[in-house]
Amino acid sequence: MATHHFQPTVYHTVIGAHEPVLHIKSGDTVITTTVDNAGRDATDQQVTPGGNPQTGPFFIENAEPGDTLAVHFDRIVPNRKIGRTATVVSPNVLEPHYVASQMPKGGGAEWEIDVEKWTATLISPDTQLGNLALPLEPMVGCFGVAPPRGQAISTATSSTHGGNMDYRGFAEGVTVYFPVFVPGALFHLGDGHAVQGDGEIVGTGIEISFDVQFTVNLIKKKGIGWPRAENDDYILAAGNARPLDQAVQHATTELIRWLEELGLEKKAAHILLGQCVEYDVGNVFDPAYTMICKVKKSILQNIGVWPPAS
Amino acid sequence: MATHHFQPTVYHTVIGAHEPVLHIKSGDTVITTTVDNAGRDATDQQVTPGGNPQTGPFFIENAEPGDTLAVHFDRIVPNRKIGRTATVVSPNVLEPHYVASQMPKGGGAEWEIDVEKWTATLISPDTQLGNLALPLEPMVGCFGVAPPRGQAISTATSSTHGGNMDYRGFAEGVTVYFPVFVPGALFHLGDGHAVQGDGEIVGTGIEISFDVQFTVNLIKKKGIGWPRAENDDYILAAGNARPLDQAVQHATTELIRWLEELGLEKKAAHILLGQCVEYDVGNVFDPAYTMICKVKKSILQNIGVWPPAS
Amino acid sequence: MATHHFQPTVYHTVIGAHEPVLHIKSGDTVITTTVDNAGRDATDQQVTPGGNPQTGPFFIENAEPGDTLAVHFDRIVPNRKIGRTATVVSPNVLEPHYVASQMPKGGGAEWEIDVEKWTATLISPDTQLGNLALPLEPMVGCFGVAPPRGQAISTATSSTHGGNMDYRGFAEGVTVYFPVFVPGALFHLGDGHAVQGDGEIVGTGIEISFDVQFTVNLIKKKGIGWPRAENDDYILAAGNARPLDQAVQHATTELIRWLEELGLEKKAAHILLGQCVEYDVGNVFDPAYTMICKVKKSILQNIGVWPPAS
Amino acid sequence: MATHHFQPTVYHTVIGAHEPVLHIKSGDTVITTTVDNAGRDATDQQVTPGGNPQTGPFFIENAEPGDTLAVHFDRIVPNRKIGRTATVVSPNVLEPHYVASQMPKGGGAEWEIDVEKWTATLISPDTQLGNLALPLEPMVGCFGVAPPRGQAISTATSSTHGGNMDYRGFAEGVTVYFPVFVPGALFHLGDGHAVQGDGEIVGTGIEISFDVQFTVNLIKKKGIGWPRAENDDYILAAGNARPLDQAVQHATTELIRWLEELGLEKKAAHILLGQCVEYDVGNVFDPAYTMICKVKKSILQNIGVWPPAS
Repeated sequence: MATHHFQPTVYHTVIGAHEPVLHIKSGDTVITTTVDNAGRDATDQQVTPGGNPQTGPFFIENAEPGDTLAVHFDRIVPNRKIGRTATVVSPNVLEPHYVASQMPKGGGAEWEIDVEKWTATLISPDTQLGNLALPLEPMVGCFGVAPPRGQAISTATSSTHGGNMDYRGFAEGVTVYFPVFVPGALFHLGDGHAVQGDGEIVGTGIEISFDVQFTVNLIKKKGIGWPRAENDDYILAAGNARPLDQAVQHATTELIRWLEELGLEKKAAHILLGQCVEYDVGNVFDPAYTMICKVKKSILQNIGVWPPAS
Repeated sequence: MATHHFQPTVYHTVIGAHEPVLHIKSGDTVITTTVDNAGRDATDQQVTPGGNPQTGPFFIENAEPGDTLAVHFDRIVPNRKIGRTATVVSPNVLEPHYVASQMPKGGGAEWEIDVEKWTATLISPDTQLGNLALPLEPMVGCFGVAPPRGQAISTATSSTHGGNMDYRGFAEGVTVYFPVFVPGALFHLGDGHAVQGDGEIVGTGIEISFDVQFTVNLIKKKGIGWPRAENDDYILAAGNARPLDQAVQHATTELIRWLEELGLEKKAAHILLGQCVEYDVGNVFDPAYTMICKVKKSILQNIGVWPPAS
Repeated sequence: MATHHFQPTVYHTVIGAHEPVLHIKSGDTVITTTVDNAGRDATDQQVTPGGNPQTGPFFIENAEPGDTLAVHFDRIVPNRKIGRTATVVSPNVLEPHYVASQMPKGGGAEWEIDVEKWTATLISPDTQLGNLALPLEPMVGCFGVAPPRGQAISTATSSTHGGNMDYRGFAEGVTVYFPVFVPGALFHLGDGHAVQGDGEIVGTGIEISFDVQFTVNLIKKKGIGWPRAENDDYILAAGNARPLDQAVQHATTELIRWLEELGLEKKAAHILLGQCVEYDVGNVFDPAYTMICKVKKSILQNIGVWPPAS
Repeated sequence: MATHHFQPTVYHTVIGAHEPVLHIKSGDTVITTTVDNAGRDATDQQVTPGGNPQTGPFFIENAEPGDTLAVHFDRIVPNRKIGRTATVVSPNVLEPHYVASQMPKGGGAEWEIDVEKWTATLISPDTQLGNLALPLEPMVGCFGVAPPRGQAISTATSSTHGGNMDYRGFAEGVTVYFPVFVPGALFHLGDGHAVQGDGEIVGTGIEISFDVQFTVNLIKKKGIGWPRAENDDYILAAGNARPLDQAVQHATTELIRWLEELGLEKKAAHILLGQCVEYDVGNVFDPAYTMICKVKKSILQNIGVWPPAS
């Protein structure tokens, strides 16, 4: 149950079987930092090329294909004052005829991050929004493990290994579960957002560098199909694909599998989800979209399948 | 500002230019009932063939193509004790390989509706869910106005005229706005759900007959592209299409149009939505899926565009 | 086996249960005309509002829900000299980023139709294409029968009843099969194209009025799920939906059903299609896209299931 | 203009920056072999794990990012007698309700390949198809260059770098163009099919090992966005994505870009494609689907833009 302080010096814009930067054990905690989507660090200096550069990978001792890796985000805090966003809703999210004739000009916007007041305040450009202040909701946009089959997958996209899911629920306090595809799992993380609208529809959240603390746990000989997570209130599954309809299919099917693993017979799982399921939209900007399928833990407790028997 | 008590005797399973059942004025209130999706009324008798039969249409005096009709749901209450659901998640919402090999058997479930305790309690079949009790969240699954071009559109689906959107937010207290396509607008409503999971993924909510009270208001010479709504906290737009990606496009574009009508310049509208937009999933079962795009009124108040200048 | 000469005076831009213009019998032939998509006739006069106005509906005596209507196109010939097209590829068919920045200006193009030389020649605007001459391939863009459930469906779109499929194979010599949903079937047709690229990606073919001759035959007590057709070389099924993936699903499933009706066991049908299936793209412009799934008659003859035993 | 005889000993199931097996020059020809999708060679021995193992990569001297690599298939011939297919249409290609209840049992089928008679003959299982014989149409299912950004992409899927496109037109005589993303381009090829239906809807063609001869040419400082190709009759572009609608967008936009490079103004390119475009369906089985957008060379010759001015 060691705590590791790790200062990254190298970053990756594909998630794959890179040389591990640190070997850790199940139960260990890592205190580290991430740069923003453009490769800028806590001092707002560009230290690596852009494209959601990832800190890591972290090698988890004893992790083997067929295991599951649990990552708990203990702490996620912006570590500089300036955050940036794009300003135009992406054309893939708008009606084609609107896109053909009505798109505004692009450009960047800057937001001042104040972790004391816990706000992000728009400081430029000068628009009718003035100095709009939004409460911080720090979240990790892109993180995951090395994908199967020797692949190395761009941090622009996502799949069964995680990746660029941009889900607002991947925030402090969440535990995320990944299938392990390679020895050591090789956990990567980056692309922090101080705030983000659902879907990341302008292609960015308020992009920021982070101080991050996370704790890993290994669940041996238990495979899962897609990233899963739990927070205080929900268990959830993520599906990453296009169209969003297919992301719905993956997320829903994975949550049913989870309910079955918790001991529900198939019929009960289907009836339950029918009236209790909730969906959240992750990314609808990237090559693969993300849909979240979730159900309240309180309902699972009522019917006696949560917490898990284990 | 009259209040009409209307007891339906005829129902429609397409939304179109049927003979009006009642002529009302802008500002009027209607107190009426709806049968359930299967055509069963408050006494649980089948009084009309199934398929989301609609009460109405109501002819709103002076409504003309190019106007907008506002419908406020004053009261939506189940009016009988028995509700019913399907029990199997629809194959279009699941991974094709799961569908090919792992689907449970079908059949119906029954739920006891208690409007005193405000619960729906599962009473059959006998599963691990036991007598799972869920808080009521009554909502109207299918409602809308006569569509454009002389069309008559099945209550199984939805489009710019509304229809079978199955959005949990279409509940008591909401005001929904529809484009008017025909003289009188011809408002229909039905398909009440006592409870429903997001997406209506088993193809039903807890299907129930309703006592309904609604109030209409006409906004002259103001056209909208897709159904809009507001509740205490949000303004929202609905997009109805497949795939869900296209529903996202319609809903997002319509909300941007609304923000522009409220006085935001295009660039400000895009920046705002980028970090503040939220999406809810309506129906992912029907021929057209429904996506909701929304933004908080409190944010619009902060930047001085809500309430509208009018 | 009568031959009817019918000169239309009324046209419809929804396909539904309109007053029949003519009652005919199974085996009868109709010689009639269609106006172009904009409602212009053989003299290029606008005689009805635009939007793919349909000639008909024709009531086929004795047609009942659950039957199949066969329509053979005996003759389809442009009956005027001027045809028109749109000139810009529709934004739904292009990459969103191209649409956002690179779309050319719109406008119409005119083509001279010469049925002697069997060519369509571009006459305006003046571009590098000069007077490009294309061989005529006359086809019917939009046709079908009254849809189920009392619906009336816009001629802009398509579904199980046919409609605006814009498939180049719906040309002289083809026999198209429709499910009958209402007494009399109520066959409509219009939207003739002198030439059309696959997908109708500019939103038009070379739009033209037609002289048409067709012959109907009724197949009693035989239901089908989607439009089917046969020509000299192929049997085929059409699926109409968005996304195109879903159109693929409908078309492929319907062709498998047809193969099973011809006597193939399910396993043989699947193996056969695996290596012998062909797909053609119908419309990718309209609200519902069209995909054609087909297989060669010669292969069916080889394995002894064509012609049908009947 | 050397000719290299290369016998592979190592194969890859991801396309990426592997150690080159051979360095060749622009203009050179390679005579080599490919194993089948399951890793079986000309003697039907499994020599490498399955999953569309690729021969290569071949390093083309002087190829740099921003160039285009042209690969001409001089000769593609099955080099053994036994080919194999799957037997069940993939559930993603069928209506979900059909999948839920009507899927046949799986299993493999075997076909005898006769390169003298130029036929593939079904030899098992025993079905109503008997010994169905199909003419050979050898094609390469999966081939391409190392993808951008240091990615390594599974041979199960496809993208801008090519990959598992399964297009029947990628046959002897075609020249395929790829964007070069890494020094040397790193060309891979494998997954030969003796015959294949459109879409590869059972998930396989008639899988076979090949003798292959191909010739490469480098086009310096000319970038393209997606794979392109030409054969005797057509120029074409491939789009690889889901849903098929997005593949249509990529392929159509890339073909327009090509037409503009040939000297057509944008407006002329749009008008031309509107009435002359043709689409072919590549893979509709894999994670990314493939759509081909093409236009006849004869039309381009008529308007004076083919052959290219160069």
